Amino acid sequence: MNAEIINIGTELLLGDTVNTHHSFIARELAAFGINTYHQCCVGDNPERIDEAVKLAAGRSDLIITTGGLGPTVDDITKQCVAKAIGKKLVFHQESAKRIEEYFERKGNTFPDTNYNQAYLPQGCIVLNNEYGTAPGCICKGKGLTVIMLPGPPRELIPMWRDSVAPYLEKLSDSVIYSQNVRAFAMSESKADILISDIKTPEGVTIAPYAKNNEILIRVTAKAKNIKLAKKAAEPVAKLVAEKLGDKVYSTGECESLAEKCVKMLCESGKKAATAESCTGGLIAKMITDIPGSSTVFELGEVCYCAEQKNLRLGVPMETIDKFGIVSCQVAEAMAKGVMEKSGADFAIATTGVAGPGGGTPETPVGTVCVAVCGKEFMCSRRLSIKREKDDRDYVRNYSAAYALDMLRRIVDRK
Amino acid sequence: MNAEIINIGTELLLGDTVNTHHSFIARELAAFGINTYHQCCVGDNPERIDEAVKLAAGRSDLIITTGGLGPTVDDITKQCVAKAIGKKLVFHQESAKRIEEYFERKGNTFPDTNYNQAYLPQGCIVLNNEYGTAPGCICKGKGLTVIMLPGPPRELIPMWRDSVAPYLEKLSDSVIYSQNVRAFAMSESKADILISDIKTPEGVTIAPYAKNNEILIRVTAKAKNIKLAKKAAEPVAKLVAEKLGDKVYSTGECESLAEKCVKMLCESGKKAATAESCTGGLIAKMITDIPGSSTVFELGEVCYCAEQKNLRLGVPMETIDKFGIVSCQVAEAMAKGVMEKSGADFAIATTGVAGPGGGTPETPVGTVCVAVCGKEFMCSRRLSIKREKDDRDYVRNYSAAYALDMLRRIVDRK
Repeated sequence: MNAEIINIGTELLLGDTVNTHHSFIARELAAFGINTYHQCCVGDNPERIDEAVKLAAGRSDLIITTGGLGPTVDDITKQCVAKAIGKKLVFHQESAKRIEEYFERKGNTFPDTNYNQAYLPQGCIVLNNEYGTAPGCICKGKGLTVIMLPGPPRELIPMWRDSVAPYLEKLSDSVIYSQNVRAFAMSESKADILISDIKTPEGVTIAPYAKNNEILIRVTAKAKNIKLAKKAAEPVAKLVAEKLGDKVYSTGECESLAEKCVKMLCESGKKAATAESCTGGLIAKMITDIPGSSTVFELGEVCYCAEQKNLRLGVPMETIDKFGIVSCQVAEAMAKGVMEKSGADFAIATTGVAGPGGGTPETPVGTVCVAVCGKEFMCSRRLSIKREKDDRDYVRNYSAAYALDMLRRIVDRK
Repeated sequence: MNAEIINIGTELLLGDTVNTHHSFIARELAAFGINTYHQCCVGDNPERIDEAVKLAAGRSDLIITTGGLGPTVDDITKQCVAKAIGKKLVFHQESAKRIEEYFERKGNTFPDTNYNQAYLPQGCIVLNNEYGTAPGCICKGKGLTVIMLPGPPRELIPMWRDSVAPYLEKLSDSVIYSQNVRAFAMSESKADILISDIKTPEGVTIAPYAKNNEILIRVTAKAKNIKLAKKAAEPVAKLVAEKLGDKVYSTGECESLAEKCVKMLCESGKKAATAESCTGGLIAKMITDIPGSSTVFELGEVCYCAEQKNLRLGVPMETIDKFGIVSCQVAEAMAKGVMEKSGADFAIATTGVAGPGGGTPETPVGTVCVAVCGKEFMCSRRLSIKREKDDRDYVRNYSAAYALDMLRRIVDRK
């Protein structure tokens, strides 16, 4: 089955909104073993929607549209699709009632134009919208299946999960299972070389993706059911992890370094604290992004100036004067300080120059000192994060990830 | 001039990478008054790239391609485009030299396949790649202009800024200038009603966009030069801001609440500090995302448990016991505590239940107390952030933005 995605909406076409529907839907389709060969985006324009639907009908079996299901004259996806599959739009009483109820629940007055949303292609499967007014639908005609979904992600995603995914699951005679091996600070070409001699069994593929500072190796298996697919993928993922070595922080159990750290700390019943200068709360934010982090994280300090490093973390002024504010000695003192004050088992500290200003010949932009300590050891690194151009976000994100990677390794040693 | 964007790359098509090129390029084109009517994405497949280029050639004057300029057999964008415009690919000596030098600079050995990247359509304008090996190009033929750009954003964006933008500027006989009015916590429909009676002069349009917790009203003016466009847009933006009232935090001078706060603090020579519980460093992170924030922000505390709120911020245990850890009283005590300890002029504090766990009947998930104080006043709010389903990120982001909006209003009062 060949699928095509048509994203409809002037705000998407003109770039005012980044098109996240495309990647969401394409990945979901892949998980059901459905190939996607084309994606396109057009504005809220009848001729161009018509043209896109016709073109898709000529080359694909399954069309997924997003957007253009609103109540206004702009919203003409259903008309174009109905024409392409040779169906009429008919009034769907139950959907009209749902729309009325939605307005009632919100306490808003009901504009008559919203009844337009209850017109759907004859004989379609209606997809109820729990989070908005526009119902979606699955309709068939002229050898084509078209799934129409509303544009807002908060409506589209639950509708996909609740209605479209179960429908596709029944259609498909195979499932796809992916397991992601993740490693920090490894280049794609390096990973490519390390895994090049892995022979995969039939139905299993390996693909590397470079993402930010990480490499993700996706091991994908296609099989009749999820159990068989898992059984095929797991040993290959394990082999990939062995080949990549200790830079691997997850063979599928975690989606980020922060999640890995929180998981390891939870499992060992330990706590960590943070003392941040140039990362300015980013590491604490990354840790507390993870649900349940409150059991392993109690204190984070953001000390952006020398005085606060001294007052709040007990970093001696002599250390700052002697080694400079951006030094491993200061990072170590910060880590030690916050660990003592918090009673945590581990602590992370950062001090550096994130830029764009503040660089000097001795400590140019991108110089960051990171320290991680436990009860009986201390480890620190001076990083020179070089980019072709200064990039504050990159420097902050890289050093935060580097610090979490150090923490993961140190917790693991225990 | 009608433009079309063709994004090439299997990783984009299959959704492994979100397509950010489309929105970047579409917005840039709009700024030069160039209309975009179509965007499509295909994988690294010769037939489908050919098909996409031919289709675009039949309906657009300007085609922008991204991706498929790499050194491998997969990378066939140039071949397809050259065929469509009736040109041959020829070896470009200078680009070959640049590629060699790039490898030398990186200290890597040079694979011969990389010479493929130096073959470019005859007579094209070569776009040097400062951050990678694949040169881009602008080529013309059969009434068509095609701009080919490399796939990696860190190569594409600088190439656009350094070479493509100046080229398009010369082509265009008009410029577009946009000014964004931003307001926190206002619905799109409410904004729509408030601005509905504004009459815009010719060449000026108003469009509202709902983004996260904000509404952005974009006032766009098309004119012969930037000075005239600004002159047309500015009074309309001012009028929009007046209509929306005090929820507006920027009429174009800032892109985020955090930037607005940092700017106002800088201008008034004041400092702010943060004490965060449920937002866990997010507010500090948002403030320190802004370059130059070190002059207005020196101390942030993340106190995730009652004990640390007491020890580090001086929140009395009786206050916690009497009113509960999620209470305006505790938030106020946290704000007061961090302001005293930091010597800042203002302080923000948050305490709440971000979820998914931790809710109780009295303080369900989404309950967040926010306090902001200055030297002589204190202000706090108990928020009940309701979503159709629990959403930790949403609760954290909304309460962080709410706190920054309170800070902005309080700094403004001074």
